[in-house]
Amino acid sequence: MALAEEKSMIKVSVMYPNTPGARFDHDYYRDKHMPMCKEKFGSACKRYSIDRGLAGGAPNTPATYVAMCHFFFDSVPAFQTAFAPNAKAIMDDIPRYTDLSPVIQISEVVAD
Amino acid sequence: MALAEEKSMIKVSVMYPNTPGARFDHDYYRDKHMPMCKEKFGSACKRYSIDRGLAGGAPNTPATYVAMCHFFFDSVPAFQTAFAPNAKAIMDDIPRYTDLSPVIQISEVVAD
Repeated sequence: MALAEEKSMIKVSVMYPNTPGARFDHDYYRDKHMPMCKEKFGSACKRYSIDRGLAGGAPNTPATYVAMCHFFFDSVPAFQTAFAPNAKAIMDDIPRYTDLSPVIQISEVVAD
Repeated sequence: MALAEEKSMIKVSVMYPNTPGARFDHDYYRDKHMPMCKEKFGSACKRYSIDRGLAGGAPNTPATYVAMCHFFFDSVPAFQTAFAPNAKAIMDDIPRYTDLSPVIQISEVVAD
């Protein structure tokens, strides 16, 4: 891994709280929703990753998030420009795989 | 990005809640703590990334986490084997950069 010195990058993390009884379709998320987002964002989105929660840090504890994804962009404005015209299509797709409301965070990628 | 079909991977995410008034030394974390962890974990840790929280998803909201890191291993047992003998050294280093207690999660890497 190299420190991101030459070229800064930002990451948009979307984290779904692991709520008992909630619905989350991991297959739809991986096979439909995330590829659709990537297609809408176009080349502004450099890549993305998807995590499926397995466990918490302490023994026999659940994961805090049932799923997380991370979208990589060159900058916050690059993300905003890519997201704004597609916000409705992306938001409208969420009920197809979950009834959860995600926690969203924008971060600077310090090392990757 | 390719779906992680051929070879599974797990990610250990360490997330520091963005608590008003808390201390977090991003330079120490990037330059000392994380490289020390990587050295202790050895080749079992495939790579790591570091995020610095910039903002929340809604306008003018703070990031949920002031910092996050993600360590990649081949499996949960590979992580546990690498972590156990180094837990004390790693834990003892935490007060040098923060007074926060992290949220820890283990995830399956579904796509990367």
